[in-house]
Amino acid sequence: MVTLSQCARPAVFEVDSIDEHGQHRATAIAGEHALTLYLDKRELVTLMTLGADPEYLCLGYLRNQRLLASPELIDSIQVDWETSSAAITSRSLAQRGLSLWEAESSSLEQQLAHRTVTTGCGQGTVFGGLMDDLANLHLPEKGQLRQADLLDLLEQMRHHDSIYRTAGAVHGCALFDLAIDPAPDERPRLLRFVEDVGRHNAVDAIAGWMWLHQPRPDPQRLHIFYTTGRLTSEMVIKSAQMGIAVLVSRSGLTHMGHDLATRLGMTLIGRCQGRHFLIFSGSQRFIAEPALAQHPLRQPGP
Amino acid sequence: MVTLSQCARPAVFEVDSIDEHGQHRATAIAGEHALTLYLDKRELVTLMTLGADPEYLCLGYLRNQRLLASPELIDSIQVDWETSSAAITSRSLAQRGLSLWEAESSSLEQQLAHRTVTTGCGQGTVFGGLMDDLANLHLPEKGQLRQADLLDLLEQMRHHDSIYRTAGAVHGCALFDLAIDPAPDERPRLLRFVEDVGRHNAVDAIAGWMWLHQPRPDPQRLHIFYTTGRLTSEMVIKSAQMGIAVLVSRSGLTHMGHDLATRLGMTLIGRCQGRHFLIFSGSQRFIAEPALAQHPLRQPGP
Repeated sequence: MVTLSQCARPAVFEVDSIDEHGQHRATAIAGEHALTLYLDKRELVTLMTLGADPEYLCLGYLRNQRLLASPELIDSIQVDWETSSAAITSRSLAQRGLSLWEAESSSLEQQLAHRTVTTGCGQGTVFGGLMDDLANLHLPEKGQLRQADLLDLLEQMRHHDSIYRTAGAVHGCALFDLAIDPAPDERPRLLRFVEDVGRHNAVDAIAGWMWLHQPRPDPQRLHIFYTTGRLTSEMVIKSAQMGIAVLVSRSGLTHMGHDLATRLGMTLIGRCQGRHFLIFSGSQRFIAEPALAQHPLRQPGP
Repeated sequence: MVTLSQCARPAVFEVDSIDEHGQHRATAIAGEHALTLYLDKRELVTLMTLGADPEYLCLGYLRNQRLLASPELIDSIQVDWETSSAAITSRSLAQRGLSLWEAESSSLEQQLAHRTVTTGCGQGTVFGGLMDDLANLHLPEKGQLRQADLLDLLEQMRHHDSIYRTAGAVHGCALFDLAIDPAPDERPRLLRFVEDVGRHNAVDAIAGWMWLHQPRPDPQRLHIFYTTGRLTSEMVIKSAQMGIAVLVSRSGLTHMGHDLATRLGMTLIGRCQGRHFLIFSGSQRFIAEPALAQHPLRQPGP
């Protein structure tokens, strides 16, 4: 069991602005905080974050950078906004007094060195090593998303309380699941919703949550990842690493995102707006119900 | 004089998609390419880029990561998409056969090491060292933007040919300038427009172009930076490093972006849509013309 602090920061601030009429207006804007991660007292990275889910962000960062193989290596994550730091303590240090840097120094150092030279995606995160492993990634094949499920999921997102609606300037990600063999009136279930100033952070925070709570996604359920951000190569790779076969976005996609998703057999649905959407790959997981394109949306449930 | 290859890549691809009616549609999507930067044959970083302006992206990356103090240290940048690489050769290597890594190894190594632990902003780029230098940054105080100039600039952006309009999934940045003491009918002049899959890359490509062509921005002209992306701390810092005092965005801003801009005395204008906008800081550089909020836009010029 990993011990996590619970240090979400207030996420919205109010500032003064002047509009086009020359009038002063109190305006809500999103928070952004520096958070420096220390693994066994050694500085790893400084992330700029909304601060809504910092402990899971740390976990997901370690996972997606592939610095640690399992959350079981971690004893605790303590976020302290006074010092803008997250102290990640390994079990090795907590139990044997031996930091991970001493215990496995060569492999961790190597991964960090590799990280230096392969950060990618708008200058984002690790990329190099991942490409080599793509061939070993096999996404679940079971389960299908009905058009009604997709529209319902988008409708849930539209009605979800969010920083974005108040203050803008953040990206949102959400994890849904649905039974492989759903009842006719069953709806996609929202498992986790995270917003952050960077879309990488929002994805990482979901990845961290999954690492702890669903290290092996239930094979009897179809997992669907929703993001407000664009579907770039990195988004496809991170989703694949989480074992998620269906990726849904309000935004568009890049050619490399499309190429990777096609090679992985991932279902990529982009440009979702109202009842419109485009399926770019993996249409075998989608059950078209074109009549729904003409009809009013199913009402959001209780 | 730096020798640059001219290797822009085709930026839009057409793929098949299926819409909500179950109909196949040919859809344009933005390119995304890995580009690995080598400085004097040593691997620096892999960026994911649209590839529209790779040589200036390299230059801007070196500048904004503060790896090199001046473009005069560089002899040539050769981009080769066959190998997805950019070979950056220093003058030191070209003239004396001595790579920068040998000539100034300790300082470059230090900066790279620091980079490893301080990448920030949605896990983006260098941050740590910059904060220390903020106190030494002084933005130009001369020049004002009239409301008509702002609306004109936004109108120019709306009519500018762009990948975004064709394929979405990219961010655009533009550099404008305007005389300190403009004629009544003078309009902001577009100096450079760059799109990329990551907003950091688009900013860096503009920074690279400025480094070579306007290392010291003309003090008789006001420079304005436009971005489709959000105004985060990193965007404010990079603009300040370029000596740009006015930052305009279609999107919102974060609290730290606001805080830094306020401390720097930078003019921050966000949430620009049609004739709407909000000025968040530095309103001393803005000449309000509230009558324009009610009236039709000035027509775009020839």
